[in-house]
Amino acid sequence: MDTAGKVIKCKAAVAWEPNKPVVMEEIEVAPPEAHEIRIKIVATAVCHTDLYFLHERGRAEGFPAVLGHEGAGTVESVGPGVTRFKPGDKVIPLFVSQCRECRFCLNPSTNQCDKSWSSQRPGKRYDVSSDTTSRLKCRGKTLLQYLGTSTFSEYTVVREIAVAKVHDSAPLNKVCLLGCGIATGYGAAVNTAKVQPGSTCAVFGLGAVGLAAVMGCKAAGASRIIAVDVNKDKFPKAKLFGATDFVNPKDHDKPVNQVLAEMTNGGVDFSLECVGNTGVMRSALESCIKGWGISVLTGYNDSQDMSTRSLQFLAGRTLKGSLFGGYKSVDSVPRLVNELMSGKMQLDEFVTHTLPLDRINEAFDLMINREGIRTVLNVSTL
Amino acid sequence: MDTAGKVIKCKAAVAWEPNKPVVMEEIEVAPPEAHEIRIKIVATAVCHTDLYFLHERGRAEGFPAVLGHEGAGTVESVGPGVTRFKPGDKVIPLFVSQCRECRFCLNPSTNQCDKSWSSQRPGKRYDVSSDTTSRLKCRGKTLLQYLGTSTFSEYTVVREIAVAKVHDSAPLNKVCLLGCGIATGYGAAVNTAKVQPGSTCAVFGLGAVGLAAVMGCKAAGASRIIAVDVNKDKFPKAKLFGATDFVNPKDHDKPVNQVLAEMTNGGVDFSLECVGNTGVMRSALESCIKGWGISVLTGYNDSQDMSTRSLQFLAGRTLKGSLFGGYKSVDSVPRLVNELMSGKMQLDEFVTHTLPLDRINEAFDLMINREGIRTVLNVSTL
Repeated sequence: MDTAGKVIKCKAAVAWEPNKPVVMEEIEVAPPEAHEIRIKIVATAVCHTDLYFLHERGRAEGFPAVLGHEGAGTVESVGPGVTRFKPGDKVIPLFVSQCRECRFCLNPSTNQCDKSWSSQRPGKRYDVSSDTTSRLKCRGKTLLQYLGTSTFSEYTVVREIAVAKVHDSAPLNKVCLLGCGIATGYGAAVNTAKVQPGSTCAVFGLGAVGLAAVMGCKAAGASRIIAVDVNKDKFPKAKLFGATDFVNPKDHDKPVNQVLAEMTNGGVDFSLECVGNTGVMRSALESCIKGWGISVLTGYNDSQDMSTRSLQFLAGRTLKGSLFGGYKSVDSVPRLVNELMSGKMQLDEFVTHTLPLDRINEAFDLMINREGIRTVLNVSTL
Repeated sequence: MDTAGKVIKCKAAVAWEPNKPVVMEEIEVAPPEAHEIRIKIVATAVCHTDLYFLHERGRAEGFPAVLGHEGAGTVESVGPGVTRFKPGDKVIPLFVSQCRECRFCLNPSTNQCDKSWSSQRPGKRYDVSSDTTSRLKCRGKTLLQYLGTSTFSEYTVVREIAVAKVHDSAPLNKVCLLGCGIATGYGAAVNTAKVQPGSTCAVFGLGAVGLAAVMGCKAAGASRIIAVDVNKDKFPKAKLFGATDFVNPKDHDKPVNQVLAEMTNGGVDFSLECVGNTGVMRSALESCIKGWGISVLTGYNDSQDMSTRSLQFLAGRTLKGSLFGGYKSVDSVPRLVNELMSGKMQLDEFVTHTLPLDRINEAFDLMINREGIRTVLNVSTL
């Protein structure tokens, strides 16, 4: 059936309000407008940032919405002016765009395209034509497109500057993880921290981002990778990705930065925060060695300030952040998919659960209970 | 009179307790021990960190002490094992040492020598032999050597790894400023921030460190240098050093970072905090542009945490600190003195007041009242 140009009715998980389960609904997805692409989502994973927005942030703004930003699918149809994509292309929607025109895209040192959702109010979908109306509706109400993507739906509409075309043979139920978590953690290590061969690293939080950071540290040649988590069940998997030492802060009476300082003769060369907790951000920074220690935070948290003594910086530590691993999104995601397909990157190990989209609330529960790493939701068949 | 090997009785300004004026006293200065140098101080400036320790920090520890760490003088005598210095050499005592042996000295990316005072408890003088006894006494009491230097005295004893030998013709009443403030601000811009040609910079706080930072930004080729201070009287001097724009936060109803963002289409490339106030540190960081903005703090504050939203980092900002401008101290200070003498650096403009040592409390009062930039105290004649 040719659906191009028509409104598509399909299933989606709608987040009507914060702190409530999402609800499977029939929604209406409008055709793509100029420079937009309508995507049939095949698979999507659930990221902690989805959970944060739904259950932890505690704000009413940004609802009702369709969450989800770690998906993969195929092009259903394209809007006027789209030339680089055609129906059937395998694609990954991106929450960081790459317009190739703004001064941020033109600067090789950053991936913070000025047309990304992050340049706009959280929860609002940004549109190139400054029309912030979403293409998604349900029961007569507009559904906001979380991070501009909304992958918890059989269909979604994304701007072409926020879509990566990937290899025709890419396994979509795996490469969807490259749409956020894996790229974020891996890139935080190799692009943002620029982990050096022979260095000592610490990774705080062993969810998907943290494990990918461990993998990135290993790929960069770190000789010691200390995995830190309050859940010791995560340690065997971290070991699989290359971690050499394991610290559970609950096992110690002293602050974890002190534990790490004692293990490493003063602190680690690089620390990566992969939780989104401001206390952990402080610990990660303060676990770095004076003089040259670099700490990179990746977790999203807009609810609380992070704090530390400024002497931490006077003593020579550097604090940075990494959004989507510092990758220029449209250019890099296809390359990461190729690396994965050539066996250079482990990805299977991240997927601990697979469920159909309509069991999405179970995926949130797994995350709340700190069970498993990533749940992949099967949304449509190819 | 040959004083070598003997206890010297001389004048010094003693800080008996916090929140009280210092008191001119006759003190006893023991001969230098192994790898130590006894210095006759000729001139010393008063830095805000001295004021902070005396009047703002609010802690009883670290007293009684002889403060002062921005001085210059001549070698009176050397202890056993000292071969690179001889009596009469012109020298600058350093609060950051350079032992040339520790892993920090051997790493080109940091100046944080492991044998510096900062590796020890503040207020305690660190000694190579692990003997933390100061060489200064008064009324039977040991006087702690602030930052290992204690330049508010006619004589002091400093470890040889914390002394820079400077040019025989160096004007000591000027180059003393290179012992802290000028090196700190200038180096924060050129070494730590690595200000780029054509960039836009903001300098927060226009004391000696801030003005030196302006000078450093200018030397590095910044095309726009925004000087920020709550005292507009500082602006003409900032202009002299190269500032192009001037912002008094008191003139605006909105936060200063917003003012700067509007002036610069989103924020500055580099910001330098030269105050030691945690609120200013936050403003400076948040005044940077997303994507690549780098903020460097130089002010000393161990009383309060600094805070910010972690999103500031996710958006691509970097926060660093600069201790003594990132300069390897023993190697760099003689070079800075030479640069000064060759006319490459402005220094006269920093000195707004000159007083004898026994009027030191007037120098503190000037600083409290935000009058002038640096007061140089004449301590001894050459």
